[in-house]
Amino acid sequence: MSVTDDMREIARRAKSASRALAVMPTQARNDCLLAMANALEANSSRIEAANALDMADGEKNGLSRAMLDRLKLDAKRVKSMANGLREVAALPDPVGRKLDQRTRPNGLKLEKISTPIGVIVIIYESRPNVTADAASLCFKSANATILRGGKEALNSNKAIAEIMIEAAKACLPSFPVDAIQVVPTADREAIPALLSLTEYVDLCMPRGGEGLIRAVAECSKVPVIKHYKGVCHVYVDSEADLNMAEKIIVNAKVQRPGVCNAMECLIVNDKVAKDFLPRIASTLTAAKVELRVDDQAFGLIGNNAMVKKATPQDWSTEYLDLICSVKTVDSAEAAENHINTYGSGHSDTIVTSNEKTARQFMAKVDSATVYWNASTRFTDGGEFGMGAEIGISTDKIGARGPMGLEELTTYKWLGYGTGQIRG
Amino acid sequence: MSVTDDMREIARRAKSASRALAVMPTQARNDCLLAMANALEANSSRIEAANALDMADGEKNGLSRAMLDRLKLDAKRVKSMANGLREVAALPDPVGRKLDQRTRPNGLKLEKISTPIGVIVIIYESRPNVTADAASLCFKSANATILRGGKEALNSNKAIAEIMIEAAKACLPSFPVDAIQVVPTADREAIPALLSLTEYVDLCMPRGGEGLIRAVAECSKVPVIKHYKGVCHVYVDSEADLNMAEKIIVNAKVQRPGVCNAMECLIVNDKVAKDFLPRIASTLTAAKVELRVDDQAFGLIGNNAMVKKATPQDWSTEYLDLICSVKTVDSAEAAENHINTYGSGHSDTIVTSNEKTARQFMAKVDSATVYWNASTRFTDGGEFGMGAEIGISTDKIGARGPMGLEELTTYKWLGYGTGQIRG
Repeated sequence: MSVTDDMREIARRAKSASRALAVMPTQARNDCLLAMANALEANSSRIEAANALDMADGEKNGLSRAMLDRLKLDAKRVKSMANGLREVAALPDPVGRKLDQRTRPNGLKLEKISTPIGVIVIIYESRPNVTADAASLCFKSANATILRGGKEALNSNKAIAEIMIEAAKACLPSFPVDAIQVVPTADREAIPALLSLTEYVDLCMPRGGEGLIRAVAECSKVPVIKHYKGVCHVYVDSEADLNMAEKIIVNAKVQRPGVCNAMECLIVNDKVAKDFLPRIASTLTAAKVELRVDDQAFGLIGNNAMVKKATPQDWSTEYLDLICSVKTVDSAEAAENHINTYGSGHSDTIVTSNEKTARQFMAKVDSATVYWNASTRFTDGGEFGMGAEIGISTDKIGARGPMGLEELTTYKWLGYGTGQIRG
Repeated sequence: MSVTDDMREIARRAKSASRALAVMPTQARNDCLLAMANALEANSSRIEAANALDMADGEKNGLSRAMLDRLKLDAKRVKSMANGLREVAALPDPVGRKLDQRTRPNGLKLEKISTPIGVIVIIYESRPNVTADAASLCFKSANATILRGGKEALNSNKAIAEIMIEAAKACLPSFPVDAIQVVPTADREAIPALLSLTEYVDLCMPRGGEGLIRAVAECSKVPVIKHYKGVCHVYVDSEADLNMAEKIIVNAKVQRPGVCNAMECLIVNDKVAKDFLPRIASTLTAAKVELRVDDQAFGLIGNNAMVKKATPQDWSTEYLDLICSVKTVDSAEAAENHINTYGSGHSDTIVTSNEKTARQFMAKVDSATVYWNASTRFTDGGEFGMGAEIGISTDKIGARGPMGLEELTTYKWLGYGTGQIRG
C-alpha cells in the first residue's frame, strides 16, 4: 500500500473510534487514564529499551546534545508522564457542558452542549513525553488522536502508545484501540496525505518550531490551530510605576528566555526613556541580555558594549535567547500600532498606573492575551488554572490563547421537541 | 497594478479599518447602522438604477428567469434591506461579553472577553441583498468586511456599499471607510489572491452552492467557515408516535424543499415500516414528492409510480427538490451509522417516545443540530432566537450550526495585575 492509502486507513479507523469515544462515560475514560498511568510506570523498562534504540540512532545520526537530552527517557521521566496522566484523569470532563439553553415560543427547547471535536492530528518534534501528554488530553476530551512525532523518537512513541492502549483495553474491553494511533512511518509524505483527509480528520495541532508549523499550515486542508512564534512585548507607559516595570521586564525576559511567552521587545514611552532606559539597560545587560535598540534609545544607552543598533528584522524576531529589542515611542497608541504591526498576537503587557490608557491598550492590541501590570510569562494553561495545556493558539477561529481540555471540544445544538413543525 | 496587488491593498486597508472598529463604541455602531438604513431607503432609485444595469447585462448574457428574479431590486426589496439593518441595530452588541473570569492565587485577575474577529471575506452569489445583510452583521460585530458577490450583481453591490459608507461617514466623521469594501473586479483570480493573505484576512465565509464553496475551501489559506450541503435525515424509530412522525416528515420535506435544512432522506425502523411506509408514501407522493427507496421499502411501496429504487449516490444527495430517499434499518444504531456515513453534519431528527433511544441518537449523530421530535427545518438563526443569521456552519472549529452575531466574534484573555511576575 502507498503511504496515502496507509494514512487513509489510519484516519478512517480513527474516525470510527471517535464514534465510540463520543458515548464513552466520563468514569470509563478516567478509569482508562489511571490504568494507562499505572501501565506506563510498570513498563518503564520496556519504554526505556525502546528509547535506547532511538538514542543509539540519534547518536549515530549526529543529533546535538540538546536534542539527545530532549529525546532521552529514564524512569524519572516515565514516572512524570504517568503522573501527568493521573492529573488529567482528575480534571473535570470538558464534554457535556451546557454552554447555552433557550426555550423558543413554540416550546422547542434548545441546548448548546460541548462535544468532542472528533479526530485530532498532533504533529510534534523530539520530546516523546508529548505522546502520552497529548494522547491523554485528547482521550480525556473523548477525541481520537493520530500522533506524528519526530522520526528520531519513533520507537519511543510507539512503545508509549502501545502500553497505553493495552492498559485501556485491559481496563475496558470495549475500548476502541484506534483511539490513539502513532503514525508508523517517518515518510514525509505522511503529513500532507493525512492533512488532506477532511472527511476523517477534524483538526491538526502542530507543536514545534516555526518552520514545522508553517509547513503544516501550508499543506493542510483540515483546520490547523497553532502559533508560529511568540514575539511578546512589554510597553512601559509614561505613567508607569518604574520599579514595577523593571521587575516585570526582568521576569519576562530573563526567567526563561527560551519559551514563547518570554518578552522579545521592550517598548518605552519617550517621556520616561531618559530616566528608565539607562536603569533597565544596566539591569538587563548585567543579566547578560544583549539589547538591539532604535536610534533614540541608542542615544541614551549606546555607551554599553551589550547594546547594538536594531535592524528592521529585529522587530519581528523571536530570539528565544538572552536578546531583547528596544523601541521608543511617543504615545501608547504608537506602542499599540508597533505591536499590531510587528507582534505575533501572542502576549503583550502594558505597565501603567493610568486605567484609561490600560483599557485602551487592552482593547486595541490584537493579541490572544493582553496584560496590565503583569508579566507576559503567565500565558500558560497551568498559570491560567486550566489544569493542563496542549498548546497555545494565536489563531482567532477556534481556541485562542492557552488551550486546556475545554479548548479540545466543539459543540452541537440539541433540540428537544414535542412534535414541533415550522410554520 | 495586478489583481494580486489590488487585493493586497484592499485587505491591508480592511485590517487597518478593523483596528478602528475594535474600539468603536456600541452606540456609534448602532447609529451608523440606522443612518445606513435610512440612506438605503432614501437612495432607492439610485440602487434601482445600478440594478437596472445588472439586469440588462443579465438578460443579454442569458441568465435564467430564476436568476434574474434573485438579482432584481425594487423599492420593496430595498425597503426590506433597510429594515434588516434596523433590526441588526436593535440587537445586543456581541462584542465585550465576559465569557469567563477567574482570579488566580497570585491575585492576577483573568477575563475572557468576546472581541471582533477582524477582517471577514464574504463570497456569495447573485442576491444583492446579501451585500447589505452581511456587511451590517459584520459591522455590528465590529468586523471589517470584504464582499465578493456575483459578477452579475457588481453594479448593485457597489451602489449598496457606497450608500452605506457615505451614510456612516456623514453620521460619524471618524467612520473608517474601508470597513466595508466590495471587490471591484469580477476577475476570478481575485478570490485565491484575497484568500492567500493570512496576515490581513482572518476568516472567509462563502455562501452559495456546493461548487462555489468547495472551490473557495480548496484555494483558501485563511480559515473558512461553511457548509457544503444539507443532507438532513428524519429517523422514525420503532417507538415513534407515527402521527407525529408524519407531520414532521411532511414539514421537513415539503414546506420548503429548496433549502439546506429540508429533509433529503427518510429512515424508517423496519419494525414500523410495514405500517408506516405505505401511509407516508401515500402522503408524500400526493404532495408530488418522488421517493427513491431501498429494496426493503420497494417491496412495501414499489407499487406507486412515484417510487423508484435508490442508487448508491442517492444517500448522499442534496436534492433541494421534491425528491426524498428512503432507507429502512433494523435499529436506531443503524440509523445513526447511516447518518454519520452519508449525512452532511447539518440537521437530523429522531422521532421516538423512548427517551434513552433519543438521548443516544443525539449523542451519537455527529451533526451541528440534532432534534428529538421536531422538524429539521428549525435550523435557522431566526428560529434559534439569534435575531439574525449570516449562515449555517457544519464545521467543528469556530462556529457550528446557525451563525448569528455572537458567532462573528472571537475572544481574547485580559490579565489585570498589580505587578505579578512568574516564580
